[in-house]
Amino acid sequence: MNISVLGCGRWGTFIAWYLNKAGHQVLLWGRETSKNYKELAETRKNDYLALPEGIELTNSLEMAIEYSEVHIISISAQQLRSFAWQLNQHNIKGKTFILCMKGLEAESGKRLSQVVSEEAAGANVAVWVGPGHVQDFVKGIPNCMVIGSENVDITKEIVQKFSSDLIRFYYGQDMIGNEIGAATKNVMGIAAGMLDGLGYTSLKGSLMARGTREISRLVRAMGGNDITIYGLSHLGDYEATLFSPHSHNRKFGQSFVEGERFGKLAEGVATVEALMVLSKQYNVEMPISGALYQILFENAEAKETLEQLFLRPIKFEF
Amino acid sequence: MNISVLGCGRWGTFIAWYLNKAGHQVLLWGRETSKNYKELAETRKNDYLALPEGIELTNSLEMAIEYSEVHIISISAQQLRSFAWQLNQHNIKGKTFILCMKGLEAESGKRLSQVVSEEAAGANVAVWVGPGHVQDFVKGIPNCMVIGSENVDITKEIVQKFSSDLIRFYYGQDMIGNEIGAATKNVMGIAAGMLDGLGYTSLKGSLMARGTREISRLVRAMGGNDITIYGLSHLGDYEATLFSPHSHNRKFGQSFVEGERFGKLAEGVATVEALMVLSKQYNVEMPISGALYQILFENAEAKETLEQLFLRPIKFEF
Repeated sequence: MNISVLGCGRWGTFIAWYLNKAGHQVLLWGRETSKNYKELAETRKNDYLALPEGIELTNSLEMAIEYSEVHIISISAQQLRSFAWQLNQHNIKGKTFILCMKGLEAESGKRLSQVVSEEAAGANVAVWVGPGHVQDFVKGIPNCMVIGSENVDITKEIVQKFSSDLIRFYYGQDMIGNEIGAATKNVMGIAAGMLDGLGYTSLKGSLMARGTREISRLVRAMGGNDITIYGLSHLGDYEATLFSPHSHNRKFGQSFVEGERFGKLAEGVATVEALMVLSKQYNVEMPISGALYQILFENAEAKETLEQLFLRPIKFEF
Repeated sequence: MNISVLGCGRWGTFIAWYLNKAGHQVLLWGRETSKNYKELAETRKNDYLALPEGIELTNSLEMAIEYSEVHIISISAQQLRSFAWQLNQHNIKGKTFILCMKGLEAESGKRLSQVVSEEAAGANVAVWVGPGHVQDFVKGIPNCMVIGSENVDITKEIVQKFSSDLIRFYYGQDMIGNEIGAATKNVMGIAAGMLDGLGYTSLKGSLMARGTREISRLVRAMGGNDITIYGLSHLGDYEATLFSPHSHNRKFGQSFVEGERFGKLAEGVATVEALMVLSKQYNVEMPISGALYQILFENAEAKETLEQLFLRPIKFEF
């Protein structure tokens, strides 16, 4: 079928590549001013892959929207509200937008599907989350991911059309859990990088146990299922985020404590801000996220703050 | 206080070192015929550390038992029943034995505390589980661990006496969950090594999500708390077991699929056998453990079996 991919960064371009490989007609859209778009338009390549001939490239949003009923959105999470507003200037009623992005709106703590629904009310919204690195996928290394929406028929149809030997999709059954889980694994990735940078890699075990629990409590308070966090969208993404050398968020955390500048986006930083909003709103204690907020935004000393967090005298785990 | 450490392998020797450092009078026992004991008696060193002067060494089990009211046991799990029987030939009534070992009795599926209680009925039994590598501890890298028993007063006393800046102890509240969790993390470690060896490191994310769930179901069926698995004794030990280069079980799994011989003990192999007993006994489906059993004991092809396990068409995660 026809599919438009909106956003031509690392993930958007990979998704175009993947869906083309899975037998679909793919149109890849990027802003004409974006560096990524210019590079692709000129060379049909980026650092990760070369676009097969079958993929068409456009910088016309109108053309991309008209091209298909199913759209993937893969842009920076903090740009999503204005982008969804822009989409809503076109005729998108009944079309499906699948968010292949991991984040929360920093200012409001809102989930990305909420943001789209608020700005583009007539559209169907789904999410595509779970583990996997572009670098691995293009080498043919398979993984398992999750697609979810509020409408199980839409979920099933997308999963059926998108599945391949490279990505095995599961049906997401809990939008709150899957979206919060996907966004917050980046926060744990930053914490993991900080522990790595401080020589405390061994405390990543504690981080995994306590991190999942902290986010699980939040999800329950928000009305989601507290077990979702222990599935692919969060815990299942820890290998890729807390341990992989490819993980931006982990690298960001490590560079931060080592006093270096890490140029690339670490989406988890905005998610930490969002979590402070949610922590208050739902009255849930979030010690790990709170410690990261202090380190990232209030100049708290990372070593002391993380030692205090992981080695302080608490007696019961649960 | 006086403490006897029974077993002078890597862990027993480290524990003697640690408790001496924490200010206790430590007697370290080993079989006079054991290679480890002979090496220590001759050089007072092993591959990991040198014994401080304050630690006494003995090969007399009677002397070790008489020396103190609190004993640590750290021997091979499959030897525990005969060792406990041997202990019971001495006056051990009212003494406390803390099991710093991770395993299950292969033949019966019994937890190690059950094995000791059956053979040495008058003794108190506690367990010491959770993450940490000897190689890291001796460098001063701290970690969090768990001590648990059926008697919370004993648990509290041990935690209070054993805590230090190097190891932060939590009270274990669920013997079934903590013992099953500690033993089975080795099974997931073997699976992780196999995935590493097959070039499927990226599937360790799925392994973490599905492995915890599989063991959690078993613990619930056995009468434990299904959330314990997501704490330090199991998930919290995944960093050390699924990712660390020090992990014996991970290395064993990797060597196995690479067709090499790995000389050192991988306790997880016996645990896989035990899980087949428990799976039947409690009527719990255990697909990961079952796949490992087929690979390790029934000559199933590892690549095909693990691909089938992780990439087969299942639609719902939970």
